[in-house]
Amino acid sequence: MIRVVVAHDTSLLRSALAALLGREADFEVTDTGWPGLYASDRTPRPDVYVVDADCPGWRQHTGTSTGGRFALPGGTRQRGVRGRRPQSRSDRDCACGASVPPSLVVLTGAGRPGDLRRAYEARALGFVNKDRSADRLPTAVRRVAQGKRFVDESLAVEFLHAADMPLTRRELSVLSLSAEGASVTEIARSLHLCNGTVRNYLAAITRKTGARNRVDAIRISRVAGWV
Amino acid sequence: MIRVVVAHDTSLLRSALAALLGREADFEVTDTGWPGLYASDRTPRPDVYVVDADCPGWRQHTGTSTGGRFALPGGTRQRGVRGRRPQSRSDRDCACGASVPPSLVVLTGAGRPGDLRRAYEARALGFVNKDRSADRLPTAVRRVAQGKRFVDESLAVEFLHAADMPLTRRELSVLSLSAEGASVTEIARSLHLCNGTVRNYLAAITRKTGARNRVDAIRISRVAGWV
Repeated sequence: MIRVVVAHDTSLLRSALAALLGREADFEVTDTGWPGLYASDRTPRPDVYVVDADCPGWRQHTGTSTGGRFALPGGTRQRGVRGRRPQSRSDRDCACGASVPPSLVVLTGAGRPGDLRRAYEARALGFVNKDRSADRLPTAVRRVAQGKRFVDESLAVEFLHAADMPLTRRELSVLSLSAEGASVTEIARSLHLCNGTVRNYLAAITRKTGARNRVDAIRISRVAGWV
Repeated sequence: MIRVVVAHDTSLLRSALAALLGREADFEVTDTGWPGLYASDRTPRPDVYVVDADCPGWRQHTGTSTGGRFALPGGTRQRGVRGRRPQSRSDRDCACGASVPPSLVVLTGAGRPGDLRRAYEARALGFVNKDRSADRLPTAVRRVAQGKRFVDESLAVEFLHAADMPLTRRELSVLSLSAEGASVTEIARSLHLCNGTVRNYLAAITRKTGARNRVDAIRISRVAGWV
């Protein structure tokens, strides 16, 4: 039996995903929200986690809200994650201190390179396109349970876009705050910058995303999954 | 048997919702995207449609993109919808000309009065909170199949907010275009207004939503499900 945990912010949708996976005879499925995903007292430990990249909870845990740090929760309580060790400061300094998911299948839509990149940085092994048939999900879970990689072929080209991240981390920080409705002065205060610098960043963001204006830059970046 | 059609933009999630409902012995479940939901050649005709209010396809069909017209697709090919007839111009002039869903269960989150209002205007009978246990969905489907109303008690207070729509239809039109990244001049051209009038609308929207600025007004309205 493969022990699968399905995580989604929305209770009904995680039950639905669990029902879908529960039809497979070799899966033992439970579902959870955040922060349940990273609970360290889970017994027995699941073989595979399935998460929806579109969830705010997942985004928060993978660092977008902190301006593209792409930090994975983990480090202090990490245990037995197939020989992986925290590799960078960003692994260790996560506030939540929970354990890294062992084998991760991420559900993502097409045209969202930001989500794909975040999943990759979180060391996901499985990448499933939500916009395609559901048949592939059980296959992905089985492959990932064996420690192998599964990439939906329809997402392959998206990886090229994901590698082409147009914004720097600092620009992402500025953009995230701006998307939350912060003014130039508020962004400047929050990031310890002067107003002119923030304006320069916002101009660079608008130019780099090919947007017409700031609101358009936020919209484009949101659609792409960057913020 | 109750014939149920589940509609969701995302293929994997509609399969998952169908799997969840398919566990009920008295349901015969199929799933579809848009515009499949409104296909007029569906045989046999389903008893209940289940739609996720968060889907762009649903929003488009219920009129947000047209600035809060709250128009339901229907009219020309409408048939046998429990004695209901097109009641207003907005019922008849929908471009798609497809049939009105017969008995509609809408899945919506808490804190999204705009989604709730849109569902109500689309004459939904069932209102299920996605953030609560999935147990209620089959109950809702059975009640709605009998032509009865089902309102998740956790959504009751939301209906008060839904009645309290802060923006006029014209303001919603302006806000929707602004949220898509249109400049004041572009909005003015699109709605046949002068630039000053658009600026006045944007100032009114910011004031009425209690926002700090235009970006914040868009964010607040999006969270509430108004745009």
